[in-house]
Amino acid sequence: MPNNNMKTIEGGVTAPQGFVANALSCGIKKPTATRLDLALLYSTLPTTSAGTFTTNKVRAACVRVSQSHIRRNDIRAIIANSGNANACTGVEGINVARRECRIVAKELGIRQGEIAVCSTGVIGLPMPMQRIEPRLPELAAGLAPDKGHDVASAIITSDTREKEIAVEITLQGKPVRLGACCKGAGMICPNMATMFCFLTTDAAVARPDLEKLTCDAVETSFNRITIDGDMSTNDTVLVMANGASGVTVRPGTPDWKTFSDAVHHVMLEMALHIVQDGERVTKFVTVEVEGARTFADARKVAEAVAKSSLVKSSWNGNDPNWGRIVHAVGYSRANVREELIDVDIAGLPACRGGLQTDTPSDNLREAVLAQAFTVRIDLNMGDAGYTVYTTDLSPEYVDFNRSEYAYWNQAKRDGLTK
Amino acid sequence: MPNNNMKTIEGGVTAPQGFVANALSCGIKKPTATRLDLALLYSTLPTTSAGTFTTNKVRAACVRVSQSHIRRNDIRAIIANSGNANACTGVEGINVARRECRIVAKELGIRQGEIAVCSTGVIGLPMPMQRIEPRLPELAAGLAPDKGHDVASAIITSDTREKEIAVEITLQGKPVRLGACCKGAGMICPNMATMFCFLTTDAAVARPDLEKLTCDAVETSFNRITIDGDMSTNDTVLVMANGASGVTVRPGTPDWKTFSDAVHHVMLEMALHIVQDGERVTKFVTVEVEGARTFADARKVAEAVAKSSLVKSSWNGNDPNWGRIVHAVGYSRANVREELIDVDIAGLPACRGGLQTDTPSDNLREAVLAQAFTVRIDLNMGDAGYTVYTTDLSPEYVDFNRSEYAYWNQAKRDGLTK
Repeated sequence: MPNNNMKTIEGGVTAPQGFVANALSCGIKKPTATRLDLALLYSTLPTTSAGTFTTNKVRAACVRVSQSHIRRNDIRAIIANSGNANACTGVEGINVARRECRIVAKELGIRQGEIAVCSTGVIGLPMPMQRIEPRLPELAAGLAPDKGHDVASAIITSDTREKEIAVEITLQGKPVRLGACCKGAGMICPNMATMFCFLTTDAAVARPDLEKLTCDAVETSFNRITIDGDMSTNDTVLVMANGASGVTVRPGTPDWKTFSDAVHHVMLEMALHIVQDGERVTKFVTVEVEGARTFADARKVAEAVAKSSLVKSSWNGNDPNWGRIVHAVGYSRANVREELIDVDIAGLPACRGGLQTDTPSDNLREAVLAQAFTVRIDLNMGDAGYTVYTTDLSPEYVDFNRSEYAYWNQAKRDGLTK
Repeated sequence: MPNNNMKTIEGGVTAPQGFVANALSCGIKKPTATRLDLALLYSTLPTTSAGTFTTNKVRAACVRVSQSHIRRNDIRAIIANSGNANACTGVEGINVARRECRIVAKELGIRQGEIAVCSTGVIGLPMPMQRIEPRLPELAAGLAPDKGHDVASAIITSDTREKEIAVEITLQGKPVRLGACCKGAGMICPNMATMFCFLTTDAAVARPDLEKLTCDAVETSFNRITIDGDMSTNDTVLVMANGASGVTVRPGTPDWKTFSDAVHHVMLEMALHIVQDGERVTKFVTVEVEGARTFADARKVAEAVAKSSLVKSSWNGNDPNWGRIVHAVGYSRANVREELIDVDIAGLPACRGGLQTDTPSDNLREAVLAQAFTVRIDLNMGDAGYTVYTTDLSPEYVDFNRSEYAYWNQAKRDGLTK
């Protein structure tokens, strides 16, 4: 995917020209916390933009507001916070998200509709606006081109590390840059997760072209990852192109291919970073399905295997349990025939024609000791394939997700819940 | 459901007249093990019978053989074993299952096609027939009317206890008995699980009536339970009616209502026993959905909530996390409107119209400390409802399912795998 023209650079979302950022510590989750939790990303030039959002029917207030803004306008600024998802918060949640946009728009001298707002954290508690609202002017005032990394820091929740990338390609003799940051790390499931990804570029791209490219790249990156099979209320991918490089890219040209490959590369890298940093995860597993009758069948099989609690538990235990994989293939509702199923684990034949192979089980066990491996399933019924990137399921994941008391306790102290 | 005519009795599957059983310890999982692992249940009189089987496209050899037998014959005997599922074992697995039937048929003087065979345990390893086959004559020779409990013992795997029930009703002035035993406890998911249930009765029932009744009762019992969302290759429910009570029951009569209620009661009890004994489970949760536009919508919502790793983890942590419940409702693909969703947890209003209620969070937390509680979700869009019985997800579940090495190690010693 990365072509020899592409090089990795520093700077994250503010690596492309004309993008500035800032982040503050507002104590959204807890007043005494000192970590960054409120960020602003802004293009000093007008943009074209594209976005994709959760398909969960329960959508956070911020998603509703961002969707309505991007439908009518191009997005030039993103306000993002961690510590509260502003989800299941009703009309008041929408008012809060709009108020954030209104205040920042005034500070930046742009229209409210040019701002997207992204929140992540606990569901069902009102936003502690008493700690956010007074800080918004300061947030806008401090925008600078060297604070891209702070955005990556401010949006993470249960992630163990910041996730960002920036690349430079050369088009028409000029450098064109792309930057991105994203966050995971629970509720990760195909069709978007509790994840954000913000991608910036200083290429100039017509909005319909940017929209199509964004959809395509999301389809083969964020929609191919699953950690726990739970789809969030807040997932958002936002792409802003501001043309500051002086280079315009158009479909059908060789430049488009280079640019489009770079977007795909950046999104896939971000998606894989999310999986690799999944909550309490110890394995990174690529589930490759081939030989399916249809694309839909290949997808059903890959997702059934990648979501099976029993399969994922066995990976956690370094158990190359091909029987559990075949059983998940069987209940996937795809068109499969047991006697045709082949399974390779970490490059070793584990199952042929639905039966065990001669591969010594010790060899299979040794192969799955690796932190990353591929499970290849050939249905031997056709030409369609699908790949999902996933993880094991660990006792620690469950333990980690047992309770969100801390959020509720703080909300009670804030007078936001009973 | 249980009517005042019904009383619980002892004896399990051999409580009804004319049923005998036996079980042996063959060391199927491990030669040195002393637990019962091979059972035979037999009706000394001809029967009518009905069965439902896994809908997994990967079906165990024993399921294939049992299905082909019950299609053409009424089943009079069931051979059941734990320790090996005889799944993903190909033609050799089918030959093995048929050979078991042939040997037992000869001992009992019945036809091979009158026998069903049910195996549960590890997937993908050949059956250790060298330890099973020589014991089959002894198994048949020791059949007795007081060994129903041994069948319940021999079929359990990761279950922590035997699951059986027997009831007596009075019809036409005569006692009519029903007995059942079942096993769980992992891979439990709607549309049948790694579970067996054998139900016997000494009522006389015409086969088409018994088949319809079995399907109906399975639909509202075993198809309503989920522990880990994994559907097994071996699920089997078998019902045998032998008429030994001298009472014939026919649909459309008051007796039928009494009998049918008893069958439903027995199956639901067995299904709930499976959930309550789920692998490393600490909570029994009833998810009741109402107010759905359609039955299919109600089912999607109930299953999404009951299968969500995040929701189940929160139950394990005694966290009354209604936000995660609403988020699972949202991704269920059912027709829902966030602003209409009400959620009650353990009888307390937790969410109204998609928003938090005034119920103090301390009260909600106290309510979910109970070992069993109900989550009631009203979609407020129609009249359809659906109920699923489920459990929490515990770190111990994952830990327990990390590896099945013991099986493979034994199979290697047996020369059945490399």
